[in-house]
Amino acid sequence: MNFTPIDNKGTVEAFCLIKACDKKTSSKGDFFLDLTLSDKTGEINAKIWNYSESEHGEYAADDLVKVRGTLSKYQGNDQLRIDRIRPVLPSDNVTVEEFVQSSLYSGERMYEEIFSIANSFNDGELRTITVALLEEYKEKLLFWPAAYKLHHAIRGGLLLHTLSILRLCEGVCKTYPIVDRELLMAGAMLHDIAKTEEFNVSHTGVASGYSTKGNLIGHLAGGAMLIDRASRECGVSEETAMLLEHMVLSHHGEPEFGACMRPMFLEAILLSQLDMLDATVYEVVDATAPLEKDEFSGRMWALDNRKLYKHDRKQDENIKLF
Amino acid sequence: MNFTPIDNKGTVEAFCLIKACDKKTSSKGDFFLDLTLSDKTGEINAKIWNYSESEHGEYAADDLVKVRGTLSKYQGNDQLRIDRIRPVLPSDNVTVEEFVQSSLYSGERMYEEIFSIANSFNDGELRTITVALLEEYKEKLLFWPAAYKLHHAIRGGLLLHTLSILRLCEGVCKTYPIVDRELLMAGAMLHDIAKTEEFNVSHTGVASGYSTKGNLIGHLAGGAMLIDRASRECGVSEETAMLLEHMVLSHHGEPEFGACMRPMFLEAILLSQLDMLDATVYEVVDATAPLEKDEFSGRMWALDNRKLYKHDRKQDENIKLF
Amino acid sequence: MNFTPIDNKGTVEAFCLIKACDKKTSSKGDFFLDLTLSDKTGEINAKIWNYSESEHGEYAADDLVKVRGTLSKYQGNDQLRIDRIRPVLPSDNVTVEEFVQSSLYSGERMYEEIFSIANSFNDGELRTITVALLEEYKEKLLFWPAAYKLHHAIRGGLLLHTLSILRLCEGVCKTYPIVDRELLMAGAMLHDIAKTEEFNVSHTGVASGYSTKGNLIGHLAGGAMLIDRASRECGVSEETAMLLEHMVLSHHGEPEFGACMRPMFLEAILLSQLDMLDATVYEVVDATAPLEKDEFSGRMWALDNRKLYKHDRKQDENIKLF
Amino acid sequence: MNFTPIDNKGTVEAFCLIKACDKKTSSKGDFFLDLTLSDKTGEINAKIWNYSESEHGEYAADDLVKVRGTLSKYQGNDQLRIDRIRPVLPSDNVTVEEFVQSSLYSGERMYEEIFSIANSFNDGELRTITVALLEEYKEKLLFWPAAYKLHHAIRGGLLLHTLSILRLCEGVCKTYPIVDRELLMAGAMLHDIAKTEEFNVSHTGVASGYSTKGNLIGHLAGGAMLIDRASRECGVSEETAMLLEHMVLSHHGEPEFGACMRPMFLEAILLSQLDMLDATVYEVVDATAPLEKDEFSGRMWALDNRKLYKHDRKQDENIKLF
Amino acid sequence: MNFTPIDNKGTVEAFCLIKACDKKTSSKGDFFLDLTLSDKTGEINAKIWNYSESEHGEYAADDLVKVRGTLSKYQGNDQLRIDRIRPVLPSDNVTVEEFVQSSLYSGERMYEEIFSIANSFNDGELRTITVALLEEYKEKLLFWPAAYKLHHAIRGGLLLHTLSILRLCEGVCKTYPIVDRELLMAGAMLHDIAKTEEFNVSHTGVASGYSTKGNLIGHLAGGAMLIDRASRECGVSEETAMLLEHMVLSHHGEPEFGACMRPMFLEAILLSQLDMLDATVYEVVDATAPLEKDEFSGRMWALDNRKLYKHDRKQDENIKLF
Amino acid sequence: MNFTPIDNKGTVEAFCLIKACDKKTSSKGDFFLDLTLSDKTGEINAKIWNYSESEHGEYAADDLVKVRGTLSKYQGNDQLRIDRIRPVLPSDNVTVEEFVQSSLYSGERMYEEIFSIANSFNDGELRTITVALLEEYKEKLLFWPAAYKLHHAIRGGLLLHTLSILRLCEGVCKTYPIVDRELLMAGAMLHDIAKTEEFNVSHTGVASGYSTKGNLIGHLAGGAMLIDRASRECGVSEETAMLLEHMVLSHHGEPEFGACMRPMFLEAILLSQLDMLDATVYEVVDATAPLEKDEFSGRMWALDNRKLYKHDRKQDENIKLF
Repeated sequence: MNFTPIDNKGTVEAFCLIKACDKKTSSKGDFFLDLTLSDKTGEINAKIWNYSESEHGEYAADDLVKVRGTLSKYQGNDQLRIDRIRPVLPSDNVTVEEFVQSSLYSGERMYEEIFSIANSFNDGELRTITVALLEEYKEKLLFWPAAYKLHHAIRGGLLLHTLSILRLCEGVCKTYPIVDRELLMAGAMLHDIAKTEEFNVSHTGVASGYSTKGNLIGHLAGGAMLIDRASRECGVSEETAMLLEHMVLSHHGEPEFGACMRPMFLEAILLSQLDMLDATVYEVVDATAPLEKDEFSGRMWALDNRKLYKHDRKQDENIKLF
Repeated sequence: MNFTPIDNKGTVEAFCLIKACDKKTSSKGDFFLDLTLSDKTGEINAKIWNYSESEHGEYAADDLVKVRGTLSKYQGNDQLRIDRIRPVLPSDNVTVEEFVQSSLYSGERMYEEIFSIANSFNDGELRTITVALLEEYKEKLLFWPAAYKLHHAIRGGLLLHTLSILRLCEGVCKTYPIVDRELLMAGAMLHDIAKTEEFNVSHTGVASGYSTKGNLIGHLAGGAMLIDRASRECGVSEETAMLLEHMVLSHHGEPEFGACMRPMFLEAILLSQLDMLDATVYEVVDATAPLEKDEFSGRMWALDNRKLYKHDRKQDENIKLF
Repeated sequence: MNFTPIDNKGTVEAFCLIKACDKKTSSKGDFFLDLTLSDKTGEINAKIWNYSESEHGEYAADDLVKVRGTLSKYQGNDQLRIDRIRPVLPSDNVTVEEFVQSSLYSGERMYEEIFSIANSFNDGELRTITVALLEEYKEKLLFWPAAYKLHHAIRGGLLLHTLSILRLCEGVCKTYPIVDRELLMAGAMLHDIAKTEEFNVSHTGVASGYSTKGNLIGHLAGGAMLIDRASRECGVSEETAMLLEHMVLSHHGEPEFGACMRPMFLEAILLSQLDMLDATVYEVVDATAPLEKDEFSGRMWALDNRKLYKHDRKQDENIKLF
Repeated sequence: MNFTPIDNKGTVEAFCLIKACDKKTSSKGDFFLDLTLSDKTGEINAKIWNYSESEHGEYAADDLVKVRGTLSKYQGNDQLRIDRIRPVLPSDNVTVEEFVQSSLYSGERMYEEIFSIANSFNDGELRTITVALLEEYKEKLLFWPAAYKLHHAIRGGLLLHTLSILRLCEGVCKTYPIVDRELLMAGAMLHDIAKTEEFNVSHTGVASGYSTKGNLIGHLAGGAMLIDRASRECGVSEETAMLLEHMVLSHHGEPEFGACMRPMFLEAILLSQLDMLDATVYEVVDATAPLEKDEFSGRMWALDNRKLYKHDRKQDENIKLF
Repeated sequence: MNFTPIDNKGTVEAFCLIKACDKKTSSKGDFFLDLTLSDKTGEINAKIWNYSESEHGEYAADDLVKVRGTLSKYQGNDQLRIDRIRPVLPSDNVTVEEFVQSSLYSGERMYEEIFSIANSFNDGELRTITVALLEEYKEKLLFWPAAYKLHHAIRGGLLLHTLSILRLCEGVCKTYPIVDRELLMAGAMLHDIAKTEEFNVSHTGVASGYSTKGNLIGHLAGGAMLIDRASRECGVSEETAMLLEHMVLSHHGEPEFGACMRPMFLEAILLSQLDMLDATVYEVVDATAPLEKDEFSGRMWALDNRKLYKHDRKQDENIKLF
Repeated sequence: MNFTPIDNKGTVEAFCLIKACDKKTSSKGDFFLDLTLSDKTGEINAKIWNYSESEHGEYAADDLVKVRGTLSKYQGNDQLRIDRIRPVLPSDNVTVEEFVQSSLYSGERMYEEIFSIANSFNDGELRTITVALLEEYKEKLLFWPAAYKLHHAIRGGLLLHTLSILRLCEGVCKTYPIVDRELLMAGAMLHDIAKTEEFNVSHTGVASGYSTKGNLIGHLAGGAMLIDRASRECGVSEETAMLLEHMVLSHHGEPEFGACMRPMFLEAILLSQLDMLDATVYEVVDATAPLEKDEFSGRMWALDNRKLYKHDRKQDENIKLF
């Protein structure tokens, strides 16, 4: 975490986001507040000893606060003893995006780009249903993550993942003119849209776990149902809805990866492969980012237990995906 | 096939069902009709040489006909040379059920029993949605098979399979009072209902193949969508609908067997096990029926390639399931 | 654990079962006794400081004792400092069943029910061999658990599991009259009987681990050998013995689950499915019992890593299996 | 097949073994005998036209006969039209071993070598039980094949396979002195002994299929039961019997290859690996024998679908295993 | 196959390629030539009765010939009875490309495009080794197929597959600037280059089978060895060679698909996914080309046994990949 | 670890090998050296408090030292407080072999035996290439381990493993004269030779991890490349090199165990089975060595999670492999 030193006695100051907050009783019977604070660079344990609500105020997870205190080591880890704490004020001019891992692009910008592609489809039915669903779910889409724990589990990750796939689609359609471009792109836009009902996400854009519906129905069958309903509502034919539903039901490729069906036509097959490709790129870049050059990672559970290698070739830019 | 000899020169006669019918040209340039005829006991190839539509009439698959002709061997198989053929008349007093493998019970009787269980549910939501869907799909349910090629691929097989599971449910609920009986039974009634959209079935009750929707969506996601729509229409709560949808999505148990989700609560788990149990019993009984006592079948592809054994203990009744 | 407070200074008293008992030396060179005490509701660590055999008596695992002492916290867990301890006396009127997880029904009652079914078989050979083996193993059967760690790992669990399957068998035989009821039930009675040689079990009815024979031979091949021997001894034909041996060898269904053979006839197939069904019901009920309504469990290793859901429908009774 | 020409009109003569024999009716209503004749080099279809029992005699599978007739082609294959046929006479001086694929060594010689190893064991229990079982099953062992269709499916194959493993054991024990040589060799002698009850084998030494016991119990559990019984009969301790039983139950190594248990001690593990090694050598040599040098076989189903290569290095001897 | 009728008695004429050619003897003892003739549209069996080398000439597989004869049916298939046959003459102005399935682009054009990319690499080592190997293998690359039986098993298929992947690489590099573009593209150019030693291919560009080296070494280890040798010869560093060798060894992704290693850095992972994507597109387009709209294919063995669907949306162009 | 007591106050002395060495700062700001010391029997944590380079000297992992100090317990483990430390002197007359787990035989002796077999090959090509490679890699072979963590991960383990396989080869060749003995043995000598480039190994003969080449190329493809290069250098034919390369590429047997190809000829198949057999023997002996008789090990991850049993039969010698 980033702290600003404010004197030469170890006193520091920072804006930060509360990730967890528990009121506890010490062995002497006093109250203290046990906090996990975070910013984009990491997190730290913090304590407010002799905590009193009237004096310090009340706090909860997902609150933005300003804290001052002193740093020390406890069992090998940094810990902050908080002397002063207060909620962030409008005049502080800080926003939640600054404190959680977020897409490099703003949700609005990504949404606009995706929406304008949908809105320019020549195929009336595909245009109607994608525009309708993007508008219906706009509020959540603007900041929703793409996962609880895996790839793109960051604020704005859902649109980032969607947009990356749409860009890959362009390359694929140039290589293979036989591909039905608008069907492929409509499928890409809708394939994960039911993730907006799969996790519980606070306004920070970080998922805290799966919803009951996410666990029992999932975003594949859930997405197909959602298209089924929307297509009735906006008069899209059963044939077109069925193609999109199949793409959503099959986009995990194999049953062992959660697919309800194996993809059966070219655009469905391409969507499932591009979905996997973008997820893999994210996870590989994320896992190798902290490595030194010519170093190997540990075994990656989500990548068949393989180790990853960071080769030592010079790279033009050290950017993260975009 | 059953034929009635009508003279001592090998002439025979029979009512039968046309399974396949092709008009072909012989090497000499004459037309002939190449037919597959069937009754409950099997099928036979038949030919009408020098076929003329005006003389013999026009025929198609699924027609019931009366034929007369002579039997001979062709490349090791029986073949019928047809001399006379005509469509079945009302006065013949024969029905299609007599010519296809059918459930021992009539569709009406099985439907009544299932419907009365649904109609007696104490839980208003479960009663509402099961009654609504049984009524909506009644026409097809009365004769629909449960499969294109596997277990219960017979006229009326869908209701027979459903009813067998309901009876198993009773035994299970007696053993384990903790089970939510009405939820389990409602799930059993609806688990395969989308099979009514999964195959193409003629009035004979025999499936001729999968429909496009059957291939692309399947009866699991298809069934969940159908419950989703119906529950909106008849005001059933999202919570109840979600439990039933989960039971339908998960009733194949494992992803490798086509389940969209693994079953996650007791009633869903029981449903998937009873579904498998009933399917297995059908296939085992069907496969061992033609065996002699103390004989083994060949390797059964659908049963992990195992061989089946018909032991030689005396059995009270030689009946088929019921 | 349940303790009875006996004053207002934190002194408590309880009857309990010793699960583990070690004599140790403190850093000062004094002896102390390090104990794990348990009752049906849980367990606790306990210490007797300055332990002397002559003063406190000698103790070992599986002893029932009465203790008095004071409770405190040590590293987050409760701990009992014992002041007084003595073995349970006949006059205390407590039995080991009260201190370990047990079947709701007594061993005697379950044994009687199973024995009377066996004794009423019409088939002489099946009656002879089941009665003989139930009698031979009666002593152990009355309290034996069905597992070291998995389903029914409780006092009396072996008979409870057997009896549950027998009740399921009744429901199955009603649904499918073609099933050879007595063969199925005889197989159910004998399928796990060699578990009496598979674990080491103290008089408490809790297994402490696998026996050498359990590890090297197992209860499938072990059960078949036991039937082989008994059938010679009581004159049962090789044919009947072979059918029962096959049922025992195959009741785990698939080689990957430990089956020596895949089940090859209807009764063997049914037995393996009902065995799995009863085990699954036990594990699901056991795993969801501590959950709140509308809550999910963690991933269950023994159930393909799935999470389990406790739905929030009202249930008539909150009972545990029976 | 080997035929002796006896004139220059294509008439030939041979001794041979009848593999299959069916009396059939020709299209003209005459009887003919449809035979499959064989010797070590292959087999041929043969016909006796206008067959009459009184004239030609009666014949059945496994009979040795002398035939005379003319060779022709039928649908690409050789066929023999038989003019004369008679059973083999003692004066013909031919034996069944000359007409079926057999081990290079006689059954007696292999039996003697194996028996003398068993009889020289220092360990009294291992000597007692191996000698007892070799004597009990001697009659069958002398000519029994080791398989119905896979490796060593030849007359005498069971002893050949056993002896090969015993020779490999010698090499292994020299390399690793820690191995318990007599335990390993006793296990090798008994590991397949229950194959004598697993197939139906005529006096020719060729298996015609699995027995009921072979299908339902198999030679692993069957072998363990057989040792269990024999050890009681000849007073061998339960501990020694258990080790041998474990070796038999586990010698297929993995459950997916039919093992009832995985091998758990060094000698059991070695036995399972040497068993596989000898089976593999047999199948590889058998499959590559007909190939040209630098040629590949087709894909071998029993060897993970791999192709086998016959390299073109000169080999000292072109012998088959021994 | 395309034939030109040249009279009204069924006489036809065609240029074609001989795929197979056997001299056989008829049942009457006459010689005849049994041929398989082919062009791009298919193949046909043909016979030259009373064949004489002096009269008709000598022919072999892969010869281009002009034939005249009459068509008839034999067992349901077309057959050509050849009256006249002669080798193609320069004046006929036909080339082998016209008679085998070929890439739409010429080998020269594809080679030039790939070579110019290699030649423009900024990285000196990657430019050196790719240019060197493209030049060394140029002759074969110009017409080599990419497979014996699977995707791109057509004349020029190896370059077509390589070029398609290079185009996909461009799209991927635009989406993810972090990718080392030249390393990825160099890997794409070399990943299949050892296929030039994996099959036996005639001048027609059709593989007739695997070479010994193809079977024993394969194009993964073979490609790595080839890079190892070439990098020594042209002074490329061991580090650069090692990265390319890893990409070649790992490009099948998973061991079960033939990968020697799993890909461990971003460019290797991308290469393996794009390789699979291009192969899949080829196979899907190839399999659905002959289908009607709204029709399903049979189960595709190479695509996890799934069926493929040809949807009925209008497509701009009905072209085959390019 | 072995320590020599040198007074009655707990002072001890020992020669030992430094496995790890870190200079750290105490909470009071003083330097101390945190060491892991080892000999053949185990390892211990040690501290030099108030460490000063000028006083105590500088140390690093893999140094041999003599230490004196006092033993105490820290959190349940032994710890050594070092009072005096110095590097080993020539006059101490100790060698690194005494402090690490090593093969019972010296590297020189094993090398000589293997080299003399190679040098006596009748086949000139096999003699040339095996002699050349044994000489080229002699320096490393003399002490190299066969693994980083698995079987034969001891000083000299690579030659010990190679020699054990060569001895097994002798036994196999006696049993099956058809085996090409020199090809099999040459393959055995070279199969793991590229392990000399697969790990980083200090002069102690213990691997500290995989090299970059080991991770990216591995010892299978690496070994094939090495033979490819060497065979060019010493004029061995491509055919002979190809057979050896195939044996190296395939010696792990199955793709899932890392094989680049499945072994396709007899000697390659035998090599892979003997390689596995020797590895298994090592691991079983190693895992059961610390067990009591009639005791089971825990589940062995590297042996399919099975438990191992140490039976209680008397064994002539309690030796470790040789």
